[in-house]
Amino acid sequence: MSLIFPRDEFAGRTARLQSQMATDGLDALLLTTPADIFYLTGFLTRFWESPARPWFMIVPANGDPIAVIPAIGTDLMSRTWISDIRTWDAPDPSDDGVTLLSDTLNEILPNMGRIGTPMGLETILRMPLADYDRIKQALPNCQFVDGTNCIQRVREIKSDAEIEKIRNICHIAGRAFDRMPEYATAGQGLDQVFREFQVACLREGADWVSYTSGAAGKDGYGDVISTADTRPLQSRDVLMLDTGAVRDGYFCDFDRNFAIGEANDDVKLVYHALWLATETVKDTLRPGHRACDMHRMFVEELRKFNVEPGGGRLGHGLGITLTEWPSATPMDETPLRAGMVLTLEPGALIGPGRVMVHEENIVLREGGAELLSPRAAADIPIIA
Amino acid sequence: MSLIFPRDEFAGRTARLQSQMATDGLDALLLTTPADIFYLTGFLTRFWESPARPWFMIVPANGDPIAVIPAIGTDLMSRTWISDIRTWDAPDPSDDGVTLLSDTLNEILPNMGRIGTPMGLETILRMPLADYDRIKQALPNCQFVDGTNCIQRVREIKSDAEIEKIRNICHIAGRAFDRMPEYATAGQGLDQVFREFQVACLREGADWVSYTSGAAGKDGYGDVISTADTRPLQSRDVLMLDTGAVRDGYFCDFDRNFAIGEANDDVKLVYHALWLATETVKDTLRPGHRACDMHRMFVEELRKFNVEPGGGRLGHGLGITLTEWPSATPMDETPLRAGMVLTLEPGALIGPGRVMVHEENIVLREGGAELLSPRAAADIPIIA
Repeated sequence: MSLIFPRDEFAGRTARLQSQMATDGLDALLLTTPADIFYLTGFLTRFWESPARPWFMIVPANGDPIAVIPAIGTDLMSRTWISDIRTWDAPDPSDDGVTLLSDTLNEILPNMGRIGTPMGLETILRMPLADYDRIKQALPNCQFVDGTNCIQRVREIKSDAEIEKIRNICHIAGRAFDRMPEYATAGQGLDQVFREFQVACLREGADWVSYTSGAAGKDGYGDVISTADTRPLQSRDVLMLDTGAVRDGYFCDFDRNFAIGEANDDVKLVYHALWLATETVKDTLRPGHRACDMHRMFVEELRKFNVEPGGGRLGHGLGITLTEWPSATPMDETPLRAGMVLTLEPGALIGPGRVMVHEENIVLREGGAELLSPRAAADIPIIA
Repeated sequence: MSLIFPRDEFAGRTARLQSQMATDGLDALLLTTPADIFYLTGFLTRFWESPARPWFMIVPANGDPIAVIPAIGTDLMSRTWISDIRTWDAPDPSDDGVTLLSDTLNEILPNMGRIGTPMGLETILRMPLADYDRIKQALPNCQFVDGTNCIQRVREIKSDAEIEKIRNICHIAGRAFDRMPEYATAGQGLDQVFREFQVACLREGADWVSYTSGAAGKDGYGDVISTADTRPLQSRDVLMLDTGAVRDGYFCDFDRNFAIGEANDDVKLVYHALWLATETVKDTLRPGHRACDMHRMFVEELRKFNVEPGGGRLGHGLGITLTEWPSATPMDETPLRAGMVLTLEPGALIGPGRVMVHEENIVLREGGAELLSPRAAADIPIIA
C-alpha cells in the first residue's frame, strides 16, 4: 500500500494548498522534494536515496495535482490518488524532463502566471540548477516566485491522521529506548550500541531508521550530531542517543540520556533541570506564542537552576522530515499554531566542552501541548 | 573517528580537484551536498537528514579547503583534516550563512573569478534558491559556472581505499542476503522480511541501511522502487530485495531474487538469462567503453535468449551515494575508466507488468571488471 491515508486526506491537503496559493497570488506550485511530494501524493519510497533523477509535482490553481516524473516511478505513482501522471525516460542527458515539465506548465498556464516554488529558509530545489534555468527560459511569460510560505503554512498544521502516525513512531522508538539496558552495557562499543538500537526500533515496528546520532563521554558529551565510534562504554559515561525512526513516512525525533554505572552531581542536576524546564514549557506553551518565545521560556527556566543553555536551537518542527520549521531560536518569530508538531529540545552545558540535550515530541493543541513521545524519566537512568 | 581515511587520502582528492579546476578554468569550487562534503573532508554524520541548514565547502585554486558551516558542526568538523572552519548560528532567518559565505569567497577571490558549483545532470544545489541569488549579488565580479564536470571526473575514479570500503559493505550485505531463508518464508509479510533483512545487515556490520526496496509477486513483480507492503509471501512468488547499506560512509547497491517454494520455467529462464548476460558483460567490459556501450552489450546478450530488456537503466555508478553517474542507457556517452565502481543491473520482462532485475557491483580495472559483490547463484534460489 503506497496510499498511506484515504483519498480525502490528500484532497484536503490540495484544497488547503490551493487556498493558500490564492492568498499568496500563485497560479501554480512546483514541488520537487521527497517530503513535499509525499505530502501531496502519499508516494512513499526510499528511492530518493538515488540523486540521479528529478521528480516534479505541479499543483494548479484548480483541479488535481499533476505528476511529471521519471518512468521508473509510473507503477508506484499510479497506486496513489494521482491520475495525471506524465513520464520520461530518466536520466536523459539531453533533456531530463525539462521539455515535459515546461510543456505541462505551459498547458495549465496558457498565457502567463506566477509559479511558486520554495526558495526560502529550510528549502532546496531538488533538480539541476542548469535545468531550472532552462525551464524559466521556456516560460518567458511566467514569473517564478518564492512558494515557501505557501507550502510551510499548510504542511505545518498536521491533520489528526498525521498526528496519529507520529505518535505511533514515537511509541515504537520509546519501546526501543526502554530496551537500552539490554544492549548498552559497560565495555560495549558505541557503534554496537547504535546498531542494536536500530535493531530494536525495527523489531518494535519501525519501517526504517533514518537518523541515529549521539555520543558517550565521561560526565557529558561534546557534540550531538556524531555517528558512533568504537570506544567502549565506561563507568561514569553519559550516553545520549537521538533517533529519527520512520513508520508510514512519518518521523519521530527525540533522544534519551543514560549514565553508565554512576553519574556525578553535576550530571544529575543538569539532567533534572532539563527535565523540569521541559515540563514547564510543555505546560505553558500555547498557540499564539512564537518560536522565539519558546526559546526564551527554556532559557529562563534553565537559568533558574543556574544552568547555561547550550547545544543549538531548543526545539523545532517535525513530521515528514526529521526536522521541520520553525526553530526555537531568538531569531525565529514564526507564530505557533494549534496542530503543529514540535520537539521540545533544551540543551545545557555541564562543563567545558560537555553538553546534555533532552528532547520530547509534542503536538500543540488549542488548550496546550500534548505529549507524543513517552516522557523521559525525571532523573537520569543509571544502567550497567 | 570521523576521519574515515588518513589525511593523505583527502589531500590527494583536493589536489586532483584543483588540477581539474585548472583544466576547467575554475578559481574556486563551491560544494553543498552531503556526498561532496564527505568526499572532501570525511565529515560523516546522519544529520543531513535535517533539511534545516545549508553547509558549504570551498575548494580554492591552491591551498586547503575551507568549511563555512553551521556552528552545530564545529566539533565534528574539527575532528576531520579541515583546519579553516568558519561558522554561524544556523538557522538564522535574516542571514543563514549568506554573508559569511560571500565574505569568504570575496577573501579568496579578491578581484574576480569563476566559481564552479555543480549545476548539471544528477546534481542539486543544497541551499535555498533565494540565498544563492543573494550570494551572486554579493559577488558581482564573479561568475558562477557549472562545476559538474570537475567534481564528477574526480569523484568517479575511486582510490584503492574507497574500493576496499565498498567491497566491505558489499560483503556485509551479501552475508545478510545469505541469511534470507531464515526470515523470508511463505506466510511472512513482506514488511517483516524487509525489517529482518535490515536487522541482518546491521548484525553483519552495516552502520545503517539507507535503502531497501523490492517486491514480491506471483511469477514476477511490477516495480523495483516500492517499499514493502504487508502481503504475506506465497508459493510461486518471486521475491526481490535491493539494498543500499552503508559502512564508513560507502554504499553497496545490489539485489537478490528468490522464488518462494517453486518457480515456473519463464522465471527460471529469465533469471538465468540475466545471470549469463551479467557474466558476459562483466568479462567483456573494459576502460574505453562508454556507458551506452554497456547498455548495448546487455541488450544484445539478453536478446540472444529472446528476453526483452526492461526495468530502467541497466547499470550506474556507485560509491558515496546509492547511485552515481554514469548511467547505462542508450543516451549516456560517458567514457568508462579504470577505477570506476559500477553496478551491472540488467532487467528483463517476464510477462505483462512483470519484471526481474539482477544486480552486481564491480570495479573496472585496466584489465577488466573485478567483482565487489559476492556473485549471485546462477539459477534462481528456491526458498521455503
